[in-house]
Amino acid sequence: MSFDRLIKKIIQTQNPTVVGLDPRLEYIPDYIKQKCFMKDGETLKAAAKAVFKFNKAIIDEIYDLVPAIKPQAAYYEMYGYHGIKTLEKTIRYAKSKGMFVITDGKRNDIGATMTAYAAAHLGCTAVGGSSFEAFAADALTVNGYLGTDGIEPLLSVCAQNDKGIFVLAKTSNKSSGELQDKTVDGVPVYALMGDMCEKWGSEQIGEYGYSSVGAVVGATYPQQLAELRERLPHTLFLVPGYGAQGGGAKGLAGAFDENGLGAIVNSSRAVMCAYQKEGCDQKDFAKAARREVIRMRDDITSYIKLK
Amino acid sequence: MSFDRLIKKIIQTQNPTVVGLDPRLEYIPDYIKQKCFMKDGETLKAAAKAVFKFNKAIIDEIYDLVPAIKPQAAYYEMYGYHGIKTLEKTIRYAKSKGMFVITDGKRNDIGATMTAYAAAHLGCTAVGGSSFEAFAADALTVNGYLGTDGIEPLLSVCAQNDKGIFVLAKTSNKSSGELQDKTVDGVPVYALMGDMCEKWGSEQIGEYGYSSVGAVVGATYPQQLAELRERLPHTLFLVPGYGAQGGGAKGLAGAFDENGLGAIVNSSRAVMCAYQKEGCDQKDFAKAARREVIRMRDDITSYIKLK
Repeated sequence: MSFDRLIKKIIQTQNPTVVGLDPRLEYIPDYIKQKCFMKDGETLKAAAKAVFKFNKAIIDEIYDLVPAIKPQAAYYEMYGYHGIKTLEKTIRYAKSKGMFVITDGKRNDIGATMTAYAAAHLGCTAVGGSSFEAFAADALTVNGYLGTDGIEPLLSVCAQNDKGIFVLAKTSNKSSGELQDKTVDGVPVYALMGDMCEKWGSEQIGEYGYSSVGAVVGATYPQQLAELRERLPHTLFLVPGYGAQGGGAKGLAGAFDENGLGAIVNSSRAVMCAYQKEGCDQKDFAKAARREVIRMRDDITSYIKLK
Repeated sequence: MSFDRLIKKIIQTQNPTVVGLDPRLEYIPDYIKQKCFMKDGETLKAAAKAVFKFNKAIIDEIYDLVPAIKPQAAYYEMYGYHGIKTLEKTIRYAKSKGMFVITDGKRNDIGATMTAYAAAHLGCTAVGGSSFEAFAADALTVNGYLGTDGIEPLLSVCAQNDKGIFVLAKTSNKSSGELQDKTVDGVPVYALMGDMCEKWGSEQIGEYGYSSVGAVVGATYPQQLAELRERLPHTLFLVPGYGAQGGGAKGLAGAFDENGLGAIVNSSRAVMCAYQKEGCDQKDFAKAARREVIRMRDDITSYIKLK
């Protein structure tokens, strides 16, 4: 009932990062795609199979170095149910290799419907007298715009199944401030959302002092990262926007506590496309991903002291 | 590039309502479930097949009376990729019967990722030289917490493919006010979000005066419905919360303009579970749904003048 499992993995690997698996087709080496197109034609099914092959090879090269992966649901939904099958398979494969899996779905709805999302992504779906984990992720990103009754169904699932959520607070994109920076009695909306995370997580605090309710705070806003770290002592941060989106490692230091904990930094494109940037042989794409993972770990940990 | 297609269907059917297909297993008659369990066991696959049979029978009974359906993604995701296959099939079947389909996914993300969601739900996914509509809905609900660059990718897809979006403004749930009612310089967040809808839709206004960017405003808040109708003259409202959630027809009148247009009211459970409330034979579930659809239409149109 907290993020203890994730934090233990971070300490074990000495690596507070997560690899985002947002596999656009143009990221996937041609030889993989061609093989799949030969078998199933240029179809959504073939594309989804190519994505799984790509993901699996990357997971095989990084699972010993990185505590977690973060598949982004949109890049699977775009291939219809074939893509969703690949999402399921990716989650199960990463878990079989001991990784912590954060499904980036930014789901949100009213209470009754959020219960269905919670069952789908973090809990179990009952069918007659049987019960199934549909996606079986360890954590899910969510959007708190609907308030407490859109979050509560997740809290019980987190408590029962040892899972976690990350609620959007300050997102990494340019226009995030249009609503999130607006102030209510002098307090910006992103901080109000952060305060709600502290409240929602208050009964599920683990051994490292962090609850099962984390927050998404973008690497592109270092000042807000540091401000929110001070303000939200029990809220673990998922930090997107490092690398490709422009957030540097130095600016991330403020996201961490004095033990080098409290945040996990995501990188997607830089890892998946490392082989393109390196200009190495396509067949070495997974090894190039491993090299980028090491570079990123060393870059970020050079600014923090991880105990 | 607007909601003209939907509004024409509303005028043609003289019915400003949409049936939500949020099919929990307990809503589905036992004889349908048993048949599916006999074939595939108590599995996610069997459950997903039962959901499709249920949806299809309801669509067959209501397509001549109701302009649109609104499948809620969560109730399909909970059955994994089998459920997503049922979502796809439900959308295609309803469209084959001439219905307008609003996928209720409340999707949201930064621009690059929102492009993938837009392709998945409203546009096309390219695979090699081919292109596929993964879900092929006519409209999608979205959450605007991330601001303009999370909405822009949808606008071009709407313009190119004659589709629409509904952005969450004031949701129907009890705790929606925790963030949405907070005021920024005297203006509540739900109205700020509404103002953004007007701005986002300003270049895609159709022949009835409404743009391709609508807003979700709950039936449970009649005062805000009327206030937003005044404030947002080009924004079509999707109104959940009628019936089961407690919103009455009289309070809905303020959501409509002087032509009886400007809003479409959703009912889910009351239609799907009409046979349970009536206590009629399970096998008459779809006919009971039809009776409830007529009752709802007559109830709502008794308070408005639809030209």
